[in-house]
Amino acid sequence: MQQGLIPNVSVDCVVFGFDFTNLNVLLIERNISIDGTNYADLKLPGDLIRLDEDLDDSAARILIENTGLSNIYLKQFKSFGSPERLKRKQRDLEWLRKIDHPEEHVITIAYYSLIDISEQRSSDLILSDNASWCPVHEVTDLVMDHMDILKGALEHLRIELLNKPIGFELLPDKFTLSQMQKLYEVILGTTFDKRNFRKKISSMKYLIPLNEKQVGVAHKPARLYIFSREVYTKTKRDNFDFSV
Amino acid sequence: MQQGLIPNVSVDCVVFGFDFTNLNVLLIERNISIDGTNYADLKLPGDLIRLDEDLDDSAARILIENTGLSNIYLKQFKSFGSPERLKRKQRDLEWLRKIDHPEEHVITIAYYSLIDISEQRSSDLILSDNASWCPVHEVTDLVMDHMDILKGALEHLRIELLNKPIGFELLPDKFTLSQMQKLYEVILGTTFDKRNFRKKISSMKYLIPLNEKQVGVAHKPARLYIFSREVYTKTKRDNFDFSV
Repeated sequence: MQQGLIPNVSVDCVVFGFDFTNLNVLLIERNISIDGTNYADLKLPGDLIRLDEDLDDSAARILIENTGLSNIYLKQFKSFGSPERLKRKQRDLEWLRKIDHPEEHVITIAYYSLIDISEQRSSDLILSDNASWCPVHEVTDLVMDHMDILKGALEHLRIELLNKPIGFELLPDKFTLSQMQKLYEVILGTTFDKRNFRKKISSMKYLIPLNEKQVGVAHKPARLYIFSREVYTKTKRDNFDFSV
Repeated sequence: MQQGLIPNVSVDCVVFGFDFTNLNVLLIERNISIDGTNYADLKLPGDLIRLDEDLDDSAARILIENTGLSNIYLKQFKSFGSPERLKRKQRDLEWLRKIDHPEEHVITIAYYSLIDISEQRSSDLILSDNASWCPVHEVTDLVMDHMDILKGALEHLRIELLNKPIGFELLPDKFTLSQMQKLYEVILGTTFDKRNFRKKISSMKYLIPLNEKQVGVAHKPARLYIFSREVYTKTKRDNFDFSV
């Protein structure tokens, strides 16, 4: 009886995978058959939380169960709770009826993550059969309000990238400025003029040039840089810090 | 039957009120009588959300119903969902039994706000009888996990203050550097050496000195400043901006 009177709570996970070519998002298939036609709609990994679970634990469990991925750091970023969020599309309504929850209202707590899925690191990222990486710019339709959740996570990610040094975790320890530019371009979904980009980052004192160049590349080897967290922390503090 | 099997969802509101003397938080009393003794425990404004409500609407409704305050901009900042969050203290257990929800698990979506409650602006902030402003530094105990929620909101507020120009919304249009220092001291809960503070803010190009001084003050009138959002936006962009 209470079903329908109080909302359920779920967790949805937006896992971004970066591979230097694309910013991808981890999606799973929701298969439904209506009047003899099979549909494989795409959705974010997600499920109802259990009563005895803490939210973060719930997110970790749901990600493993849905996609096979474990040990991924997930960060809560926003809850979505419009009463209409599950009911805007006909196929979602059919699906709710099929699983016997036609009147369900579910508030979802959304988590996100950004991980390196480039070749050298992706060997231990084995996905379940119905999970796959899709380039974010190719995702045009997801079930229910999952497009809104994806957009919210993307906005969150881009603000983080512009305000915190999270990008450097995806670069090799020693990297070229071209690699750095590529990372910003892929995650922000844009392209930069090389000279403007270099001018912009020339003020970043925490980018330390090395007396080392790339080796084993076909083109003219470029200078390597490291990111100094120490300098970053110090210059950030100089800027606008009132901590005692 | 479903009660106890799926969690309820609530909204809790952390409304900070700034008055140049203290950073206050809006609290309400939860009255309970146990074995003939009356207790007036303090809690954050909060309640269960309704099934047909969007989360932001729910927060606004609950704030009005609990405290009488309307038209306050509330921002969602985090959800709290530890299964034990309601059950750590004996009086909370008694209270849950009294309202007939002994097994309830409630996930709460927390909102926060920062408003000006100094004399000249507080005339339209009429509170309900059981609601009151308490200086944050005097709050040592709240019901359930509300201290955790308050601490989370405070941390969020301080990070915002150090990274965004939210403080200027609480200052008069023309202000002195002493007023600005006081604002940072009150919200960050600390004190600054005057010279160090001035040195720190001398790099903020968006603080524009005027050819005007205070009038009608007993002490030596100080220079007035304005905050330029235009310069702030521009210098912020120069710093670390890759927008196209």
